[in-house]
Amino acid sequence: MEKTNIAIVGLGTVGAGVARLLLDHGDRTARHAGQTLWLKKAVVRDLSKKRDVDLPAGVLTESLSDVINDPEIEVVAQLIGGLEPARTIMLQLLEAGKDIVTANKALLAEHGAELFTRARELGRSIAFEAAVAGGIPIIANISQCLSANQILSLEGILNGTSNFIVTQMDEKGSSYDDVVRQAQELGYAEADPTMDVDGTDAAQKLAILSHLAFGATVVWSDIPKDGIDRLDPDDLRYARQLGYRIKLIANARLADDGLELSVGPTLVRIGTPLAEVRDAFNAIRVIGDAVGPVFFHGLGAGQMPTASAVAADLIDTAVGRTRLTFQTLEYFSIDQPPRVKLRDADTIVERFYFRLSVANHPGTLSAITAVLAKHKISIASVIQHESEDGATTANRVPLVIMTHATPAGAARRAADEIEALPAISGPVVRLRVKV
Amino acid sequence: MEKTNIAIVGLGTVGAGVARLLLDHGDRTARHAGQTLWLKKAVVRDLSKKRDVDLPAGVLTESLSDVINDPEIEVVAQLIGGLEPARTIMLQLLEAGKDIVTANKALLAEHGAELFTRARELGRSIAFEAAVAGGIPIIANISQCLSANQILSLEGILNGTSNFIVTQMDEKGSSYDDVVRQAQELGYAEADPTMDVDGTDAAQKLAILSHLAFGATVVWSDIPKDGIDRLDPDDLRYARQLGYRIKLIANARLADDGLELSVGPTLVRIGTPLAEVRDAFNAIRVIGDAVGPVFFHGLGAGQMPTASAVAADLIDTAVGRTRLTFQTLEYFSIDQPPRVKLRDADTIVERFYFRLSVANHPGTLSAITAVLAKHKISIASVIQHESEDGATTANRVPLVIMTHATPAGAARRAADEIEALPAISGPVVRLRVKV
Repeated sequence: MEKTNIAIVGLGTVGAGVARLLLDHGDRTARHAGQTLWLKKAVVRDLSKKRDVDLPAGVLTESLSDVINDPEIEVVAQLIGGLEPARTIMLQLLEAGKDIVTANKALLAEHGAELFTRARELGRSIAFEAAVAGGIPIIANISQCLSANQILSLEGILNGTSNFIVTQMDEKGSSYDDVVRQAQELGYAEADPTMDVDGTDAAQKLAILSHLAFGATVVWSDIPKDGIDRLDPDDLRYARQLGYRIKLIANARLADDGLELSVGPTLVRIGTPLAEVRDAFNAIRVIGDAVGPVFFHGLGAGQMPTASAVAADLIDTAVGRTRLTFQTLEYFSIDQPPRVKLRDADTIVERFYFRLSVANHPGTLSAITAVLAKHKISIASVIQHESEDGATTANRVPLVIMTHATPAGAARRAADEIEALPAISGPVVRLRVKV
Repeated sequence: MEKTNIAIVGLGTVGAGVARLLLDHGDRTARHAGQTLWLKKAVVRDLSKKRDVDLPAGVLTESLSDVINDPEIEVVAQLIGGLEPARTIMLQLLEAGKDIVTANKALLAEHGAELFTRARELGRSIAFEAAVAGGIPIIANISQCLSANQILSLEGILNGTSNFIVTQMDEKGSSYDDVVRQAQELGYAEADPTMDVDGTDAAQKLAILSHLAFGATVVWSDIPKDGIDRLDPDDLRYARQLGYRIKLIANARLADDGLELSVGPTLVRIGTPLAEVRDAFNAIRVIGDAVGPVFFHGLGAGQMPTASAVAADLIDTAVGRTRLTFQTLEYFSIDQPPRVKLRDADTIVERFYFRLSVANHPGTLSAITAVLAKHKISIASVIQHESEDGATTANRVPLVIMTHATPAGAARRAADEIEALPAISGPVVRLRVKV
C-alpha cells in the first residue's frame, strides 16, 4: 500500500488527538485514503513534557528542521495557535514544499491572504476545516457540497465557550463571573477567555465563512461585534419571559446593497433550532438559493471533534482532493477584488430589545417613548414590573422594550438619546432580536 | 477558461432544475469548478413535451446516441428514475467513457455493486449525492468529511413524503387517506406512493448510507421495515399524550455483535431534534467515535434542493475530486467481503409501544400483563381511558402500553400471543420507541 508521510507541529490537546487517530486507527484512515497515513514526526517545544499520547520512538522532536529538511514528509498538520511563530512556521513549511492542514482560525483571519497566496505560488495547499465550528464540517459543506448555490445567508453559534457560559447562566441563573470560573475549571474556557467571550473568535470564524460563502474579502475586525462578557442575568430572564433565549449569534446576510455581517448577543425565539443549541455545541444555518435552508449541529470544540476535522483534511490532502479544491477556489486571494461589499451596519433593519433602569416617577415612560417615536421606532412589547420587593416607591425600576423592525442606526441613536435622559441611570442595554 | 461538456439524460423535474442551474448560473458553477460547465445535450423521450426550462437550440435531443457518440461530452447527469432502462443507459454511458452523476437511489440500492464495479473497471466514476436526503449533503459528509471516524450510529428521517403525511396527520388530526390525497395534489406524493409510504424508499437510502458509513454490503430488502401506511391517527394522539411524536425513522447502529438496521414508525420524544422535523424536511443524526453527534437538517426532496446536489456532483466530477473519492472508497465493491455483519433483528433491545383494543371486562389486563411477564417485558406506562362517550359499559376500549427496553423478538412474540387472547380484537399495534 502507498504511504504518505505526515508531521504534526504542536502536540497540544488537538495535536495529541490527531496523533491518536493516526496511530490507533491507521486501518481506518488507510481505508478512506487508499493509502497509509504515516506519522513520521511530531514537533514539540519541550521533549520532557508529559503527553496525552504514546508516540513510537523517534517521532517526537524539538526541531522543526527535522520536518522541513525531510523531503519524505509531504503533509504537515500545523497546530500551533496564535499569530507568531505560527505564521513564520507556516511560511517555512510551504517554502519547504509541504501541504498544510491547520486549525488556527486567528492566523487565517489575520494573515490568510498572505498565506494562501504564497501557497498558491508554490503549488501547495492549505486545508482548514478545523478552524471553524470544530467537528461540524462547515468549510467543506459551504465550499464544495453547496457550491451550486448562491449562499443567501448564514447564521450560527460559532463559539462554544460563549455558548456554554450563556447556557449555564440561563439554566442555572448563575452570574457571568461564576460561570466563567466553572468553564475554566472544566477546560471550556482559557485562563484568559477574552477572545472567546468578547466576540473576537466568532468574528474571525465569520470572516472565514464569508470568504467562502460570498467571496467577500472581509477584515474580521471590520465586523461589528459584541460579546457576552457584559451580559446580565436579568436580560436572560426578561428574554425568557418574552419567549426568547439569548445566544451569541454570528450573522451574515446578502442584501441588495451589500453583505450584512454582525456578531452579538441576540434574542432567539425558544423552540427554534438555534435557541436549543446548548453548552459547548455549535450550530450553523445556511440558506442557499437552490437548496433552501440547511442546518448543521455538532460539537464546536474539544480534542476529538477538532481532531476529526484535522484528520479528515489530512486524508483529503493525501488523496489529492484538497489541492483540486484549493486551486479552483478563489478565497483569500489578494488579487481578487471583493465580489460583494459590506453593507453599512446602520442601515440593517432588525428588531431590538432595550433594557433600561428608569426613575419611578411620572413622565418617564412618556419621555422614552417620545425618543423612540422621533426615530420612527415602533414598540412591539413592554415589560415594566413593580420592583421585586413589592415597594411601589422604589427609586428605580427596570423597563424592557421590544421594538418592531427598525434600522440599526436609528436604534443606536435612540438608545444614546434615551441614555442621556435625566430619568435614566446607567447604560441602555441594546440587543438584536432574530426575526 | 477551460470547459467541461455536460449532458443531462432525463429532463423531468430534477433534470430541468439542473439545466437551470447550469444555464442561468454558469458564472457561479464556473467560479466553483475553475472552468465552464457547458450543457451540450439534454436527452428526452418526447421532444414536443412542454418543459420547465428554456434550452438553447440544439441541446434537446431524443437520441441517447447523440451523447454516447460525442467524445466531447465527459460528464452525464443520468436522471431517469426506476431500474430499467436506467440501468442499461448507465452501463452504456460508462462504456462510452462518461463519468456519471445520478439521483436514482433505487437503481443504486438494487444494482449498485454491478454499476460501481463496471465504473471502476472502466476508470470512470459515479457520484450520487442526490440519491439520499435531497439537499442535505449526507453522502459527502459521511464518506469524506467524517472519514476519520468510525461511525457508531446514524438515524434519520429519509423520506419526505412520509414525513409530510405524518406531520399533517399529527398536526391536523386528518386521516391517512385524506393526507395522501392532499400530498398528491401538492406534488409531495406520486400517483402511486407505495415505495415512499411502505418504507421501501427509506430502506434503500439506509442501505446506501450503511455501505458508506459501515462498509456493510446491505441488500436493502433485508432491512426490517414498516411504513406509515397503516398508521392510525389514534397512535399519533396517544403518543402525544405520552410526550412523543411518531416519525418514520431509518436507524443503523453498530453493536458488538453486528449492525442493527431498521426502518419503521417510531415514537420520538417531543423536543428532541428528530421529533421537530416537519413536513417534507429530512434530517440525519450521525454519531462518530471522534466527532461525537452531528446533526443535519434540510429539504429532502423537491426540484431545486435535489438539483443543488446533482450540480455539486457535476462540479466535483469536472474538478476531478469525484474520481479521487470513487477510487479510494470501497463501497459497492462486489469483491470486498462485508466488514460488518447484520445483527439478528430479534436481539435488538428497544422500548416498544403497544396499542390494543380490549374487551372491557374483568381479567383482561391481567391476561395481557401475564403474557408480558412471561416474556420478561417490563411495563413503563399504561393508558386506558374510559370510552370516549363516557359509557363505562362500552364493549371495547383502547389500551396503550409502553414497555421498558426489551429484545425485539420478545416484543414480537408477546404481541402475537396477546393478539391471540380472546379478550383482544383486531391487531396489536407495535411501534419502536427511540431511546
